[in-house]
Amino acid sequence: MLGPPCRRRAARRGPSTRSVLNAAVDTLRIGVIGTGNIGTSHARSLAREVSGAQVAWLYDADTARAVALADELGANVAPNAEQLIASSDAVVIASPDALHAEQALICLDAQRPTLCEKPLAPTVADARSVVDAEVDLGRRLISLGFMRRFDPGYVALKESMPAIGQPLIVHNAHRNSFAPYGLTTSGTLTNSAIHEIDINRWLLDDDYATVQVIAGRPGLRTPDGELDPILVILTTRGGVLVEVEAFVNAAYGYEVRCEIVGSEGTVEMGDGAFLTRRAERTMGHALPELWLGRFEDAYRRQLQAWVDATHAGRTSGATAWDGLIATITANAAVDSITGGPQSIDLPARPALYA
Amino acid sequence: MLGPPCRRRAARRGPSTRSVLNAAVDTLRIGVIGTGNIGTSHARSLAREVSGAQVAWLYDADTARAVALADELGANVAPNAEQLIASSDAVVIASPDALHAEQALICLDAQRPTLCEKPLAPTVADARSVVDAEVDLGRRLISLGFMRRFDPGYVALKESMPAIGQPLIVHNAHRNSFAPYGLTTSGTLTNSAIHEIDINRWLLDDDYATVQVIAGRPGLRTPDGELDPILVILTTRGGVLVEVEAFVNAAYGYEVRCEIVGSEGTVEMGDGAFLTRRAERTMGHALPELWLGRFEDAYRRQLQAWVDATHAGRTSGATAWDGLIATITANAAVDSITGGPQSIDLPARPALYA
Amino acid sequence: MLGPPCRRRAARRGPSTRSVLNAAVDTLRIGVIGTGNIGTSHARSLAREVSGAQVAWLYDADTARAVALADELGANVAPNAEQLIASSDAVVIASPDALHAEQALICLDAQRPTLCEKPLAPTVADARSVVDAEVDLGRRLISLGFMRRFDPGYVALKESMPAIGQPLIVHNAHRNSFAPYGLTTSGTLTNSAIHEIDINRWLLDDDYATVQVIAGRPGLRTPDGELDPILVILTTRGGVLVEVEAFVNAAYGYEVRCEIVGSEGTVEMGDGAFLTRRAERTMGHALPELWLGRFEDAYRRQLQAWVDATHAGRTSGATAWDGLIATITANAAVDSITGGPQSIDLPARPALYA
Amino acid sequence: MLGPPCRRRAARRGPSTRSVLNAAVDTLRIGVIGTGNIGTSHARSLAREVSGAQVAWLYDADTARAVALADELGANVAPNAEQLIASSDAVVIASPDALHAEQALICLDAQRPTLCEKPLAPTVADARSVVDAEVDLGRRLISLGFMRRFDPGYVALKESMPAIGQPLIVHNAHRNSFAPYGLTTSGTLTNSAIHEIDINRWLLDDDYATVQVIAGRPGLRTPDGELDPILVILTTRGGVLVEVEAFVNAAYGYEVRCEIVGSEGTVEMGDGAFLTRRAERTMGHALPELWLGRFEDAYRRQLQAWVDATHAGRTSGATAWDGLIATITANAAVDSITGGPQSIDLPARPALYA
Repeated sequence: MLGPPCRRRAARRGPSTRSVLNAAVDTLRIGVIGTGNIGTSHARSLAREVSGAQVAWLYDADTARAVALADELGANVAPNAEQLIASSDAVVIASPDALHAEQALICLDAQRPTLCEKPLAPTVADARSVVDAEVDLGRRLISLGFMRRFDPGYVALKESMPAIGQPLIVHNAHRNSFAPYGLTTSGTLTNSAIHEIDINRWLLDDDYATVQVIAGRPGLRTPDGELDPILVILTTRGGVLVEVEAFVNAAYGYEVRCEIVGSEGTVEMGDGAFLTRRAERTMGHALPELWLGRFEDAYRRQLQAWVDATHAGRTSGATAWDGLIATITANAAVDSITGGPQSIDLPARPALYA
Repeated sequence: MLGPPCRRRAARRGPSTRSVLNAAVDTLRIGVIGTGNIGTSHARSLAREVSGAQVAWLYDADTARAVALADELGANVAPNAEQLIASSDAVVIASPDALHAEQALICLDAQRPTLCEKPLAPTVADARSVVDAEVDLGRRLISLGFMRRFDPGYVALKESMPAIGQPLIVHNAHRNSFAPYGLTTSGTLTNSAIHEIDINRWLLDDDYATVQVIAGRPGLRTPDGELDPILVILTTRGGVLVEVEAFVNAAYGYEVRCEIVGSEGTVEMGDGAFLTRRAERTMGHALPELWLGRFEDAYRRQLQAWVDATHAGRTSGATAWDGLIATITANAAVDSITGGPQSIDLPARPALYA
Repeated sequence: MLGPPCRRRAARRGPSTRSVLNAAVDTLRIGVIGTGNIGTSHARSLAREVSGAQVAWLYDADTARAVALADELGANVAPNAEQLIASSDAVVIASPDALHAEQALICLDAQRPTLCEKPLAPTVADARSVVDAEVDLGRRLISLGFMRRFDPGYVALKESMPAIGQPLIVHNAHRNSFAPYGLTTSGTLTNSAIHEIDINRWLLDDDYATVQVIAGRPGLRTPDGELDPILVILTTRGGVLVEVEAFVNAAYGYEVRCEIVGSEGTVEMGDGAFLTRRAERTMGHALPELWLGRFEDAYRRQLQAWVDATHAGRTSGATAWDGLIATITANAAVDSITGGPQSIDLPARPALYA
Repeated sequence: MLGPPCRRRAARRGPSTRSVLNAAVDTLRIGVIGTGNIGTSHARSLAREVSGAQVAWLYDADTARAVALADELGANVAPNAEQLIASSDAVVIASPDALHAEQALICLDAQRPTLCEKPLAPTVADARSVVDAEVDLGRRLISLGFMRRFDPGYVALKESMPAIGQPLIVHNAHRNSFAPYGLTTSGTLTNSAIHEIDINRWLLDDDYATVQVIAGRPGLRTPDGELDPILVILTTRGGVLVEVEAFVNAAYGYEVRCEIVGSEGTVEMGDGAFLTRRAERTMGHALPELWLGRFEDAYRRQLQAWVDATHAGRTSGATAWDGLIATITANAAVDSITGGPQSIDLPARPALYA
C-alpha cells in the first residue's frame, strides 16, 4: 500500500545461485555528483538505509566538501564528473540545476543508469537534448528525481482516487517558510511549483493543455518586481482544472497539501502528523520549516526503488520525458506572467516512453 | 528526528580502507528462524530494504514454507535452528513464543547477535534464564523486538515530552479488529498489552510498582469466561498512572493511541494518516485492519538499527532485561484478574543492563 | 466572542421603568412574508428561540400553507403582503427572489424595519431601486439576510485574522450534495456563490475590482450547457486574490470551507463537528446534506441580532448597499463566463452607508 | 438534530387565540436568586436570548451587585429569596451550593417551577430532603442545571450511539486550566466530576454499581494533601466501565472529551472548533480557559428548554432524583479515596421519577 512493489532482486539469479558466497556481487557501486545538501542526503541514505548499494565515488567542485563526506562514508573522491561516471555502476546527479543536462548526456554516453535530480534542465532546449540522446540510444537510463511519486502520502492519494469518481478539480498548496536560495517568480515556477506540475500529471495520468499564473497580493517579504504568493491555473487535456498556490515566503512553516475533487467525493492529503499537542491554550501539531522534514521518507523510498530498478535493468519513477514536459510547462507558466494564458504544445511522445 | 541516529558503519574502517574493493565484507549474513507472517516480513525487509545485510539462512519447522521464501530471496535453508545459528553472522528469532527463550540461549552460547521477537518468553522463569545466561556471558547480544521504540509516532512522542512538564497520567488504547489467533485474557496481556507495558516504561524511563486489571463490559464477540475489553491500570515507581485499554475484538479497525498528560500540557499520538476522504456524507480516513498497516515502518527501522548496531558491536532497542520486566509485569497483570491489585517485585538490575 | 455584542434592550428604559408591568411592550409584532422552507424556519425561530419578538402575521401565496403555520404558532394570516406590512411592527421577507425588491420598496414606504432574505434582487436594476429608495428616505431600514455574518465559524475566522498578518489569498469551497431547485450556472453564481461574494467582502473589509469564472471539468451530473464545478476568481481593490470553488452537485455532502492565507500564517474554517466516529475501518465525522445542518445557529443569531437592532432603532448585519454590491458582482461573474475577466464598476457609495 | 425538540408554546392555545392581543400573557416573569458569575449569565441570557421569558426579580446577598444587574436588565430587586420566590412565576437558583436545597424547598412549598444549579446539594441528606418534599407534593417542579444534557456535542454523541453497538467502556477527560475557587479533592468530585457522573448516566441510561478513585501523580500545582489529577472508575449496573480523568490544574486550557467504546465502533466528542490556525511552525486551534467558552450554547439551550417546559407545565432536563443520585455517587467517590472501592446503594426510585 505504501509505495511501488519492491523488485525481487534475488529473483534474477537462478536456483543454483542459492549461495551466500556471491551475494556481494549484488551491491551497486554508486557515484554521486554534487555533495551539497541534497547530494549529501542522497549519499548518506544510499550508504546507510538502502539495500543493494554502496557509495563508491563522490565528486564536488568543492573538493574539501567531497573529501569530508567520502571519509564519513568510506567512499573515494573522483577528480571530475567524467571519471566518476566512468568508474561507477550507476550515477546520482545532484549538481546545480544548470549542469544536470550536460552530465546526464555524459551518463547516457557511458550507458550508466542515472538518477538525476529535478529539474532535468531549466531550459526546454537542454531538457530536449537529453530526451533526444536517450531516444537515439534506444534505451531508458535516466530516472528523474521527482521524489513525491514515492511519498507515502501521494501514493495513498493516488490509490484512493477510484473511490471519488471522476476527478474534476485539484487544489494544491505548496508553501515554504522562506526562500533558502532567494526568491524569483520564475524560480518559484521552475524549481518549486514544478513538483506540483509533475505530481498532478502523475496523479491524473493526463497532460496539460493550458496554464496561467494569477498573482496574489504580495506579502511583506516579497521582493520588488516579484510575485509571491501566486496561483498557477492549469487545465488538462481531459478537462480537469488543476490549481496550485505557490507561496515561498509563507513564514509559518513548510506545508504541502493536495485535494482532488471528484464527482462522488474528495480526497485530501495533509502532512501525516502523528502528534497532537495541547499547551498554552492551543491544541495542534508542529510543522516543519522546509521540505526535508516532510519528504525524508520519500527520498529514501525513491533511492531504494531506483537501486532495485537498476538491478533489474529498468528505470523507476519519472523519466526524462516527464522531466521535459515539466520544464515545458513551467516555462509556459513563466511566459504567462506577462503574456496571459498559454497553451502548452508538446512534441510527439517518442515510442521509447510509450 | 525520526529514530535513533544511524551508526556510521564505515567509520570503523581507517582512512586507508577508502576503497570499494572491500566494501562487501560489510554485509552481515543473517539467519531467520521462523518463516511465518512476521519472520517472512523480517526476511523480506532485511533482503530488500535494509543496508548492510543479506538473508543467508532460513529455518522453519514447515520446510516447504522455508524453501519457498529461500527461493524468493536467494537464501539457503538450514535443517534446524542450531545449524542456522552456527552458520549465520547474526540471527533473527521469529519462531512461536514458547521457543524464543530456548533459541535465544543457543544464540548466546554461540555468541551470535540476536534480534528476538517479543515476548522474550511467556513465563518469567524462561525469560529469567535468558537474562541469567547473558549476564554470565558478560556481554549483551540480545536485542528484543519491541518495534514501537522505532516507530516514528512513538519516537516523536518521546521527543515532545519535555514540552509538557512532568508526566502525570498516560492514557493508552490498543485495539485490534479481531483476534487472528484466538482470544484469551492472558494472551491479551502477554502478547498484545505487553507492547504498552514496554513502551510506557521506555517513554517514562521508569519501572512499574503496581498493576491491576479492570474488566469492561464484555462485547458480543467476547468468548465465555474471557474479558474483552479490559483496562490495565499501572503505577510507576515515580508515581505516574498508566492506563491501557486493551480491546482485541474491537471490530472497527486497528488503532493504537497514547496520550501523555503532563503538568503543563498533553501530547497525544494518533495514526499519522495522510488522507482525509469525503464521501457519502462522511469525512475521515481509513483505518488498518491489523498492526502491519500501522507499524510497517517501525519494523524496517528496527531492522536497520539492529544491523547497524551489530556492525558496531552493540545491541539496539530493548534488551533481554526489558523483556524480562515486560514478562514479569504482564504475568502480574494476569494474576490481578483473580487476585486484585498486584505489586510488582523486580529482581536487582544486573550491572550488564545499567 | 461568538457574534456581535447583544444590544441591551432594557437599557432604553430609564430607571423608572424598572417594573415588570410594562415589559410586554417590548415584544415586536413581526410579519413574515413567505412560508416556504426558509420563511417557516424564520417564523418558528422567531416564535420559539428569539427574545423580544412574536410572530403576529404571516402571508403566503399558498394560503393553506400560511394557515397551517399560523395555527402552529398562534399567528394571524394576512390577505396580502401589503396588509401584512401595514399591520406589523417589523417584517421578514422570505418570498421568491424575484419579489424581494418590490416588497422591500413597500416596507420602505411604510417605514418598517425589514429583514430581507438574500439576494436583495436578482437584477442590478431592481437592487439599485431599493438602495435609491432607502437613500431617498434618508434612513436605513433594510437588513439583508447574509446570515453567515452571524455564524460562529465565520465570526471566529474574522476575529482570528489579526494573528496572521496581511491577508493575501483566500480559498473558499462551497459544495452542495445536489441542487434542490435545479442547476444553472447563473443560479450557482447569483444564489449560492453570492454568499462567498458577500462574506469575503465582510472578512476583508474591501471591495472587488475584477472577477472571472473558470470552468472545472463537468461532473457526471452536470446538465448539458451548464458548468459545475466552477472556480470564481476575484481580486479586491486592496489586491487580495479571492477564489471560490462552487460545486452544486458535489454528491458527497454539504460543506463550506474558507482559508485565509496571510503574510504570517493562515486560518481555515471548517464545519465545527463535535464528533469523531470510528466504525468499519474508517474514522471521521458526518457531513450534512444541505445548509441548514451547518448554519442553523447562524440563522437564529441573525434573527436575535435583528430583533435587538430593531428595538434599538438600528439595522444589523448586511445593508441594502451590501446587497446591491453582491448582485453587481454576481452578475459580472455571470458575464465573465462568455466575456472573460470583468472589471467591477461600483456606483459611488451613498453617505447613508458610510 | 441538535437538542431536544422545541415545545410548541403556542399549541397550548386553541385556534380561537390566534390573536396578537394576548400574546404578551405568554411571558414568564422569572426570579433569579444569586447574581454571581453563573446567576448573571443566566439572567442576561433569559433577558436577551430566550423566548417567552423576562427577568422580573433578582436577589443577591450582595445587594449592590443585584441592583447593578437589575438596572442593566430592567428588573426589580427583591429583599430576600422568600419574597423573590413569592413574586415570580418561576425561579432560577444560582446561589452558593450549600443553599440550593433550602431554597429549592421554599420553591416547592410555593409551587414554583424551579431551575436549580447543580449540585442539588453537597450532602446526601440535603439532596434527599428535596426529593422527599417533591414526592410529597406529588408533582415535579425542580429542573436541575446539568446543562451538558443540552450541549450540541453531547446531544450529537447520544444520537450517534446506535451506530456503535453495545457501549462497553466510556473514557472521559475533564480538565480545567486552574481552579478558580481553590482545589480540594472532594470539591473536584462533588463540583466538577459530578458533571461526568450525571452525563454518563444520561448517555448510557443506566445507574452506577461501584466507584473508586485512583490518584495520578500530583502535579506541580497540586496542594499538599490533595489529589490532582485523578481517575474516577465507575461501573454501571449494566456492566459498562466508565472512567473519568478529572484534572483541575491542567494549565494548558479547558477541555472536555468523551469517547464511548462500543462493540462495533467508537464515537468521541471533542470541542467542535471551527478554526485551524497555522502560524509559527504550528497548526491547530485555540482552547478556552474555562467552561463558559465551551458550554455557552448549552446554557442558552437549557434555559430555553426550561422556559418552554414551564409554559407547558413540565420540567426539562435532569430532575431532583438525578441530582440526588449524582450527589450520592460523588460522595461515594470521596469515600473511596480512603476506603477503597465503594458500592453505590440507591434508594428505591419513587414513582414520581419513573
